[in-house]
Amino acid sequence: MDAALRAEFGVEGEWQIWRRHRIRWAECDMHGHVNHAAYLVMFEDLRVEHWLRVGQGFGEGAPGPVVAKLEVRYLRALRFQDEVLLALRTTGLRNTSYTQDYAVWAGGLAFEAKALLVCVRDGASSPIPGEARGRFLL
Amino acid sequence: MDAALRAEFGVEGEWQIWRRHRIRWAECDMHGHVNHAAYLVMFEDLRVEHWLRVGQGFGEGAPGPVVAKLEVRYLRALRFQDEVLLALRTTGLRNTSYTQDYAVWAGGLAFEAKALLVCVRDGASSPIPGEARGRFLL
Amino acid sequence: MDAALRAEFGVEGEWQIWRRHRIRWAECDMHGHVNHAAYLVMFEDLRVEHWLRVGQGFGEGAPGPVVAKLEVRYLRALRFQDEVLLALRTTGLRNTSYTQDYAVWAGGLAFEAKALLVCVRDGASSPIPGEARGRFLL
Amino acid sequence: MDAALRAEFGVEGEWQIWRRHRIRWAECDMHGHVNHAAYLVMFEDLRVEHWLRVGQGFGEGAPGPVVAKLEVRYLRALRFQDEVLLALRTTGLRNTSYTQDYAVWAGGLAFEAKALLVCVRDGASSPIPGEARGRFLL
Repeated sequence: MDAALRAEFGVEGEWQIWRRHRIRWAECDMHGHVNHAAYLVMFEDLRVEHWLRVGQGFGEGAPGPVVAKLEVRYLRALRFQDEVLLALRTTGLRNTSYTQDYAVWAGGLAFEAKALLVCVRDGASSPIPGEARGRFLL
Repeated sequence: MDAALRAEFGVEGEWQIWRRHRIRWAECDMHGHVNHAAYLVMFEDLRVEHWLRVGQGFGEGAPGPVVAKLEVRYLRALRFQDEVLLALRTTGLRNTSYTQDYAVWAGGLAFEAKALLVCVRDGASSPIPGEARGRFLL
Repeated sequence: MDAALRAEFGVEGEWQIWRRHRIRWAECDMHGHVNHAAYLVMFEDLRVEHWLRVGQGFGEGAPGPVVAKLEVRYLRALRFQDEVLLALRTTGLRNTSYTQDYAVWAGGLAFEAKALLVCVRDGASSPIPGEARGRFLL
Repeated sequence: MDAALRAEFGVEGEWQIWRRHRIRWAECDMHGHVNHAAYLVMFEDLRVEHWLRVGQGFGEGAPGPVVAKLEVRYLRALRFQDEVLLALRTTGLRNTSYTQDYAVWAGGLAFEAKALLVCVRDGASSPIPGEARGRFLL
């Protein structure tokens, strides 16, 4: 992430994957703010992108990430058409699970979450595939 | 909550508001499980019900609850058409904020969350109205 | 449907399946009205209920309904917490497809749709199972 | 739209606004296909883009588009991660309403809809602002 992007959105820290996003009509509620559940859907997209980047897929019978825990803080309300930066970093890797941070930046931090993901295959937790592990934190 | 309902869903502890729910098609993802964000929307409904029960509303300019923090644990996957019990209890009350527990019961605990809600009026935190406070924890 | 319910919601015509519904927070948009896509999700629930009533299910490999066409009219805006009646009737039955009407009643007609559903199995259109046909229009 | 893009997605006809889109996890249902309501949300985004392009906004008290009618055809199922092209064109303009076509292209036409939009201000239909009319169909 270059200095211009950091300055534009007030980003702090190091991040692994990021994406510009413009707040959608469907993400806003009657208050004119992004609904609290809509943030989670945004980061589902980044979690998918990470899983693909480490060479994994989502086919039938393939292992995939399932959310086991979330700690979420909503720091500032976002509004329709706001330009924001979504960012993800993987912070830990165990045998069958991993942890990620998610953040929305818009003139500083607007939202942050810590997630515990479990790798699941056919309904049971399953080791994160060896070929994926080397790229997991990059 | 009577003993029969407790036994039917494996409920533990005391709860303030509860509601039977059958898992909807739209709540399930490609794995055939309830999507992690869909749980939050279910409890939005119960949070609204609590806010109405304490005599408050959602009109223009009225104070209303905004989610500030969430701690969520997904314990067991739920599937399409599963019969579950949604339950809410208010666990704390301060000047401008309150805390609630949310749980999904289905043969025991399947999902739980702790939420911090802030009472917001015209975009700023605002005291929880006095007439509501006496009923808040009942 | 008895006369009291008809009078309460201003219902006209004959209907096969109906359900009271209170408009949810998540169904409303920034205008304070039910979002146009949210109506379709409400009727997904009734379509599922019809499919179950005719003795069919949604298991792996089972035939199931897929929406092929929709004609939708949004007649009056609905608001958060409005009490409405959702109604469905099956209007036609062919070998691999059927048609349904959907309506929302709230002091008269607020929404109506005509849908063409195709019975699909393993990605291809498939005959509606014989044991279901006799109950399809009841 | 250049010839390469037309060829890539099998686009036919002339379009006013288009956007590449990769099918999201949240857009797919248990069948692994894009849910029928999710298409409508995609085109909400393009409708918003058109409204902004003609110089209009979505502020409090401003006139804005409301969906009055839809005719929708689902031609081919789309799957998670499919690359598609979303396209919109405005086909008619009256005093307080307009019509648009929406299409999803992916190796040819996968989805199409015709929409009637009404310009609404403070809950009542309202003339489409004069300064917008000249650019409406471009």
